[in-house]
Amino acid sequence: MSSYTYKLYYFNSRGRAEMIRWIFAAADVKYEDIRLDKEQWAKKKSEMPFGQMPVLEVIDGNGTSTLIAESRAIERFLIKQFNLDGETDLDCAKIDSIQEYMSDLFRKMPFFESDLQKKEKLMKEAFEGPVAKAYEIVESQVGSSKYFLGEKLTWFDLAITAGSDVLLMFNPNLFEKYPKLKKLHSTVRCHPNISAWIAKRPQTPY
Amino acid sequence: MSSYTYKLYYFNSRGRAEMIRWIFAAADVKYEDIRLDKEQWAKKKSEMPFGQMPVLEVIDGNGTSTLIAESRAIERFLIKQFNLDGETDLDCAKIDSIQEYMSDLFRKMPFFESDLQKKEKLMKEAFEGPVAKAYEIVESQVGSSKYFLGEKLTWFDLAITAGSDVLLMFNPNLFEKYPKLKKLHSTVRCHPNISAWIAKRPQTPY
Repeated sequence: MSSYTYKLYYFNSRGRAEMIRWIFAAADVKYEDIRLDKEQWAKKKSEMPFGQMPVLEVIDGNGTSTLIAESRAIERFLIKQFNLDGETDLDCAKIDSIQEYMSDLFRKMPFFESDLQKKEKLMKEAFEGPVAKAYEIVESQVGSSKYFLGEKLTWFDLAITAGSDVLLMFNPNLFEKYPKLKKLHSTVRCHPNISAWIAKRPQTPY
Repeated sequence: MSSYTYKLYYFNSRGRAEMIRWIFAAADVKYEDIRLDKEQWAKKKSEMPFGQMPVLEVIDGNGTSTLIAESRAIERFLIKQFNLDGETDLDCAKIDSIQEYMSDLFRKMPFFESDLQKKEKLMKEAFEGPVAKAYEIVESQVGSSKYFLGEKLTWFDLAITAGSDVLLMFNPNLFEKYPKLKKLHSTVRCHPNISAWIAKRPQTPY
């Protein structure tokens, strides 16, 4: 067990910090969920590695503080602390691999397109093309166990569920052709720790 | 020690596979470095997860084969097998964090811009802006030890060196203001296993 205490710095949104919050929730570990507004961030920015958030502050038993930037690096650190990875190195590689593929997909999504007409067209193309391809691949790898890799919850279950929540905002029919993923998504959201977090988290648009 | 045998599939280029080859070189572990031409790849593509390369085939002592796609996932798997990560979880997080930041940087580089005049302009802006900012940050974290984290070579030393090799193709003065990074780059390239690999690897333009 780690003897660290944790402070998570991000904006008042889910965004790139939500998966980190889900990891804390799944592991049932306390942390300070610090949400900065624009003014507070402007003052804090220069203290942060790379001048960006999310940042996790990790304080050890001696009071020594370490700042970790970049959501993936924070997630990976916590996954180790809380034993949320696969059980074998090959299982870890399997979910790393799919997650890298999904991250590529998310980077290509037109979430930030400001021309709304164009955004609608690009979103439709994305859901019919790369999203469909990716979900088909992941669906084909979901087995009959409770979670993706078996009976143990791993970070990948959290990632595919939190990621799907984002896509569902743009396409409520996301799971139409993917019954196994739909079931996994529902299983993870109904995990007592995750459902408790979803119920109590601050309501923000994204 | 692992009892796996390895086959790496990629094109005949450094590209997204070179860091994987450096990891094998550093660890002095044998693997088959399979380089497919376009025709061979067209036939192989459908067998590969996600239809892309690099792919690492891992064969265990019983002859069971597993395919791992996505360069980062392959790297992470091998880093574990060959003990090339940091020694503490916080050290691992430190290099994960910088590497994620550098990966964001690389994704934004105009490597694939086809308009050569535009590419030159965009490259200049990138080197003066985000590349300079990133190298300043990394330079400030290089200590006086042999390698980035101390006396032990880690995957991050390989990543920053192989990554810098790519940037040096576009800007030979990359290290002008970063003497510590210049020294680290040279130390890694002079590591006996790495320099042997650089000397014997197939000569390709990128």
